[in-house]
Amino acid sequence: MNELRYGLRVDVPLDYDRAVDETMAALKQEGFGVLTTIDVRQTLKQKLDADFRRYVILGACNPPLANRALQAETDIGLLLPCNVVVYENGPGRSVVAALAPLTMIALVGENAEIDAVAHEADERLRRALGRLEAPRAS
Amino acid sequence: MNELRYGLRVDVPLDYDRAVDETMAALKQEGFGVLTTIDVRQTLKQKLDADFRRYVILGACNPPLANRALQAETDIGLLLPCNVVVYENGPGRSVVAALAPLTMIALVGENAEIDAVAHEADERLRRALGRLEAPRAS
Repeated sequence: MNELRYGLRVDVPLDYDRAVDETMAALKQEGFGVLTTIDVRQTLKQKLDADFRRYVILGACNPPLANRALQAETDIGLLLPCNVVVYENGPGRSVVAALAPLTMIALVGENAEIDAVAHEADERLRRALGRLEAPRAS
Repeated sequence: MNELRYGLRVDVPLDYDRAVDETMAALKQEGFGVLTTIDVRQTLKQKLDADFRRYVILGACNPPLANRALQAETDIGLLLPCNVVVYENGPGRSVVAALAPLTMIALVGENAEIDAVAHEADERLRRALGRLEAPRAS
């Protein structure tokens, strides 16, 4: 797993479609549903007639954690849901990356509940990405 | 306009539904389409049977700016689209807040193109929120 300045990233030996499916399954195992899906390639083609690699932005939300965060700070919706991107990265290879909640809370300032929620979200996303990185039977 | 640690916020003398409509119109005038909509109240009710105020998270995207950012840094999709939230804040009053692109790029590190895109997005969002704050005839 690589640490980006603002996220976590894994390279996986999967074609794009399978990487998207496995990412959604791994997120689900950690209690994250996908509330929004943006097909970046399709959007750029439609709006600008520009070509781009296959790329999706998933808005992942763990409802109990989101609820705790919103109760603690109303404006925190600006940082929800947690983005997870999947994009193709050569034949049979994809990248999965997640926005790092611990990076984000540096923006929020001191709030013990937000801090606790971000730590839990961070652990769960790390486990989800770690699972994607684990060797496969097939 | 108030500056939050991670966003810009205006209080508007509008009921929630009208605030959502006017926000979408103001964003459109600055070239932002709304790619995703999360009804927070409905989501928390559905997933947790929890009650919450009326609250929407809009995923706002200016396609030319998004394209420039993605060409400059593939992983920047983690910070797209730009969230704008609208929520009720008492009778006939609502809050509109936007994630501040200039705060976000502090996370990215040095990249002149990302910097330029973030500055332009920031100016456009400020104009959109400023328009919502301007006095109304009705």
